[in-house]
Amino acid sequence: MLHNDNLEQWDRENFFHASTHLAEFARGNIPQRVIKTASGVHIEDRDGNRMLDAFAGLYCVNVGYGRPEIAEAIADQAKELAYYHSYVGHGTEASITLAKMVMDRAPDHMSKVYFGQSGSDANETNIKLIWYYNNILGRPKKKKIISRWRGYHGSGLMTGSLTGLDLFHKKFDLPLAQVIHTEAPFYFQRKDLGQSESEFVAHCVAELEAMIHAEGADTIAAFIGEPVLGTGGIVPPPAGYWPAIQEVLDRHDILLVADEVVTGFGRLGTMFGSDHYGMRPDLITIAKGLTSAYAPLSGSIVSDKMWAVLEKGTDENGPIGHGWTYSAHPIGAAAGVANLELIDKLGLVENAGTVGTYLNTQMRAALTDHPHVGDVRGEGMLCAVEFVADKDSRSFYDAADKIGPQIAGKLLEQSNVIARAMPQGDILGFAPPFCLTKDEADQVVTATHQAVASVLG
Amino acid sequence: MLHNDNLEQWDRENFFHASTHLAEFARGNIPQRVIKTASGVHIEDRDGNRMLDAFAGLYCVNVGYGRPEIAEAIADQAKELAYYHSYVGHGTEASITLAKMVMDRAPDHMSKVYFGQSGSDANETNIKLIWYYNNILGRPKKKKIISRWRGYHGSGLMTGSLTGLDLFHKKFDLPLAQVIHTEAPFYFQRKDLGQSESEFVAHCVAELEAMIHAEGADTIAAFIGEPVLGTGGIVPPPAGYWPAIQEVLDRHDILLVADEVVTGFGRLGTMFGSDHYGMRPDLITIAKGLTSAYAPLSGSIVSDKMWAVLEKGTDENGPIGHGWTYSAHPIGAAAGVANLELIDKLGLVENAGTVGTYLNTQMRAALTDHPHVGDVRGEGMLCAVEFVADKDSRSFYDAADKIGPQIAGKLLEQSNVIARAMPQGDILGFAPPFCLTKDEADQVVTATHQAVASVLG
Repeated sequence: MLHNDNLEQWDRENFFHASTHLAEFARGNIPQRVIKTASGVHIEDRDGNRMLDAFAGLYCVNVGYGRPEIAEAIADQAKELAYYHSYVGHGTEASITLAKMVMDRAPDHMSKVYFGQSGSDANETNIKLIWYYNNILGRPKKKKIISRWRGYHGSGLMTGSLTGLDLFHKKFDLPLAQVIHTEAPFYFQRKDLGQSESEFVAHCVAELEAMIHAEGADTIAAFIGEPVLGTGGIVPPPAGYWPAIQEVLDRHDILLVADEVVTGFGRLGTMFGSDHYGMRPDLITIAKGLTSAYAPLSGSIVSDKMWAVLEKGTDENGPIGHGWTYSAHPIGAAAGVANLELIDKLGLVENAGTVGTYLNTQMRAALTDHPHVGDVRGEGMLCAVEFVADKDSRSFYDAADKIGPQIAGKLLEQSNVIARAMPQGDILGFAPPFCLTKDEADQVVTATHQAVASVLG
Repeated sequence: MLHNDNLEQWDRENFFHASTHLAEFARGNIPQRVIKTASGVHIEDRDGNRMLDAFAGLYCVNVGYGRPEIAEAIADQAKELAYYHSYVGHGTEASITLAKMVMDRAPDHMSKVYFGQSGSDANETNIKLIWYYNNILGRPKKKKIISRWRGYHGSGLMTGSLTGLDLFHKKFDLPLAQVIHTEAPFYFQRKDLGQSESEFVAHCVAELEAMIHAEGADTIAAFIGEPVLGTGGIVPPPAGYWPAIQEVLDRHDILLVADEVVTGFGRLGTMFGSDHYGMRPDLITIAKGLTSAYAPLSGSIVSDKMWAVLEKGTDENGPIGHGWTYSAHPIGAAAGVANLELIDKLGLVENAGTVGTYLNTQMRAALTDHPHVGDVRGEGMLCAVEFVADKDSRSFYDAADKIGPQIAGKLLEQSNVIARAMPQGDILGFAPPFCLTKDEADQVVTATHQAVASVLG
């Protein structure tokens, strides 16, 4: 490794950071943060600052940092065989074992898993498979994808189109024409404050039905959704939402993609969000929790129903024209095997449920009565606090006031706790590692209470 | 790790392999190959078969297999900090150091590097940046991308569209409308056999000019090309091709993306193919050689000219709406740093040049006179042999005869040498690790000669 005397200069001169204000970073007006080491729920930067990461990286380090079991699995695999491809029937013991472990955990009606590197590329794979499926079935017009406003499904061209957030569309000419968006199942932000939760679900269903009717069911291939909206604001669905949506999709022969990048492998206190909410997906997108981010790996889990058509397709057309060089990368596969074993061994899915419920309960108790806290919501090890200018009228702050980012900044500054200001709205998100203890949950709640008080009084 | 007594069954029941005939694999008619370990240019499967991998995985294990320096860097990073994100100015010592090392090696007029996971996602990033660039410059119509037939730029929806190979389009509704394809710079497969090499270059340029004229230069944002066509058949450009193309692009203010996923970091015997051929790209795509595939990592290198506009864009619009969870993943970054150090230390770029030239010279000497060998071509550590039904008329075999795959199969069966039957045409491709010795090159040539004789007489 080169000397690092000039690390800050190297960074500002050479490194194009994700989701960053490029000009301000280059000018030195955005702090550079170099993370050095981490353990459990804590990370440490090179200046020795230790922080409680209540967002688990980007809700991905589910088992917590510094797990020697996973580091050793990676080290062993790197020594034995760092790379071979998975094309034309090739594999490694790690990738085959992980495929088996994933399918053992997936809902019963799922058949096979295709491994990629990121959630975005897994959703690319999904759309390719959906279009292929309908071509093989002789339905060339049935191709549009319905996504939801506030959904997050990636940052590429098609996957950024699926994403229903302005930040990912603006100045990028997205969404592409094949993607249309319907109502977000975001009860707190419903337009009609008079709607009950069940009336709001009926409204979401009616909006979807109207869109299908207007476009023609024979043009709609699939519907994609996260069981719980993630980057769109950490929003569990209103009661009864998924069964009602599933019924509409089934009736119109529209495939369901469950994007479980955030929820897969335990974040809701159950192995998959699909099981949790009674969804019956044809494809499940997995990534973050598959390896707890120790190495890049994602997957598309394909249902029996779709798989039969994919097999037919290759009988008619030869090998499927889809592959990434790093599909089923051995390092990622080894990390995945060790990660899923560790989750079982430590009972982390259960812990995500119990401590997650505790975190949500305590957060609600501490903050609900605050005059500028409009909503405290969550499910399993996901929690969000949403701020409002006025509670009775549910009026929001001007985005330019950056209330959410201010509170996240104060939380870090005062208490060394990392939460995430969600990108659209004044929403503070929490998604800690599953190994969070009740004491640490208390610490997060207390720190949040103080930060809110500092910024909003 | 679970017991592996049932590995074959697990594989066929659970694992969706890339680029595979899914039905035949499920039925057990395609052999399952489980790779266990590897060292230098050799890989070994779990049955103890040792093979000389003359394709370096998927032309990616450039430094060769089993390098302890890289395995140890990965192991150390996994122990110290397996993951943190690179959003909003965050980084790690490994990722910042690698950014510096990449920019030290890139052409002088390049400014910053954005890290992703795969070549496909790096090209996604590139198209997003190109569209953003023209939006910031107030040219909303200038958005189409010109690619070449036979180009390979990925397997996603947009990147598979850039790819100019039927296999990646068929039944997937690709290419998307924003992508148009021009003539492949494939002299051996030129339609008009009477054309000299320079006449063929003039023809390629005229085709490009005609396309720009027909579409309108104000609608064309960029041109993307590999310095040497890779998956399209391993085809070095005809002499003078790139300077002539570059002149056309400059005249019409069209950006150039050099896809150096295969050629970057030494495969041509020079650090970048752009330098090798006198290209002046605005974006360079990097992946495989960046880490020699020891961990998934890719990059988009952005020119000074584009970077200035991206900074302006964030001053006008705030943080750039682009990021992958695994951008600049620490494990990949650590692998990249160790890999680039090793390439320097062992003089592997030079070796790719000298031994690559030797491989090409010997292959040409051994095979050119064979009545069914139409062309032997290459550059650096890339080599291809193309077969023809009849040499004088340059008539090709029927694709259904699978001459290329037959020869690749025979090469493996007789001599345990892995080459790759390129997917479109009867072309046998070689892309060995850079550490190939002259003895090993001789072995590859002799084995190829024997395999060709076995199949074609």
